[in-house]
Amino acid sequence: MAARTAAKRASKKKGARHGSKQKSPARAPKKKSAGSMAPKPVKTGKGATPLEIAKDFAALIRAGKSDVVETKWLAPGIESVEGIGASMAWAGKKAVLAKYRGWEADHEIHAMRVDGPWVGATGFALRFSIDVTTKSSGQRMQMEEIAVYAVRNGKVVREEFHFAVGG
Amino acid sequence: MAARTAAKRASKKKGARHGSKQKSPARAPKKKSAGSMAPKPVKTGKGATPLEIAKDFAALIRAGKSDVVETKWLAPGIESVEGIGASMAWAGKKAVLAKYRGWEADHEIHAMRVDGPWVGATGFALRFSIDVTTKSSGQRMQMEEIAVYAVRNGKVVREEFHFAVGG
Repeated sequence: MAARTAAKRASKKKGARHGSKQKSPARAPKKKSAGSMAPKPVKTGKGATPLEIAKDFAALIRAGKSDVVETKWLAPGIESVEGIGASMAWAGKKAVLAKYRGWEADHEIHAMRVDGPWVGATGFALRFSIDVTTKSSGQRMQMEEIAVYAVRNGKVVREEFHFAVGG
Repeated sequence: MAARTAAKRASKKKGARHGSKQKSPARAPKKKSAGSMAPKPVKTGKGATPLEIAKDFAALIRAGKSDVVETKWLAPGIESVEGIGASMAWAGKKAVLAKYRGWEADHEIHAMRVDGPWVGATGFALRFSIDVTTKSSGQRMQMEEIAVYAVRNGKVVREEFHFAVGG
């Protein structure tokens, strides 16, 4: 029960993080001896890696060049998913771009902050904090969300927007 | 080209957000007239919703009750993916729990902050900021990551950890 003890020890301090790091060479995953317990490498196919795309994507957004992001990084078959309160998915770049244009036409962005990227094995995340007014309603609001992008063969094949809901 | 003009107008201010909101009743998606351009509802099956799980999950982690999270919310077939620098996937709850225990045994958590949740249509995200020492190396570090959890039939079926890499 050493493991459980360790878990409780960690929990006593501030609560154990719910996950793991695998960066230490001393803890490199075993190749075969662990059988089905052993982790497997995660790949995203050919082309730019999630890290490469994430850095360029974030830099372009910060520079106001979302049009370049659309041309350069969005896959033809991209799926775009809006989070809680919407819970809808748009399929294909044509539909996704139409969604963007519709949103832009009805919103005035006063200020936007982009934090990140945070980079995973299959994609990356950005945090958007936006001061925006919905033109049709006149309502000004502070939006805060985490966008998660999935990468395959050097393109973004999926995005999902997660909205702050409070704790 | 009205759409493009709108996009550029937004870009001029601070760069257009790369996505959309669908909360306004005035902009509810059309049912059928838009054909393949129309979005489709996203569902996560039976059981607790991503919002319900997200709130309870975050509260339990903050209370140091990660053991309850494991029992209550992790699906038997959960896949756990570590991000850049690791890029490995653990399959199945047994392997995932073994990974957790291994990490906990080699790490001392000095402090942990959990931000979120942010809730999407298929899952949710949490942000972890951890002050931790790796016991085997003696190295103390500040970890910062976004964990993204996918929900299906009231359980977490996948998690991926995204690590801060700088802009």
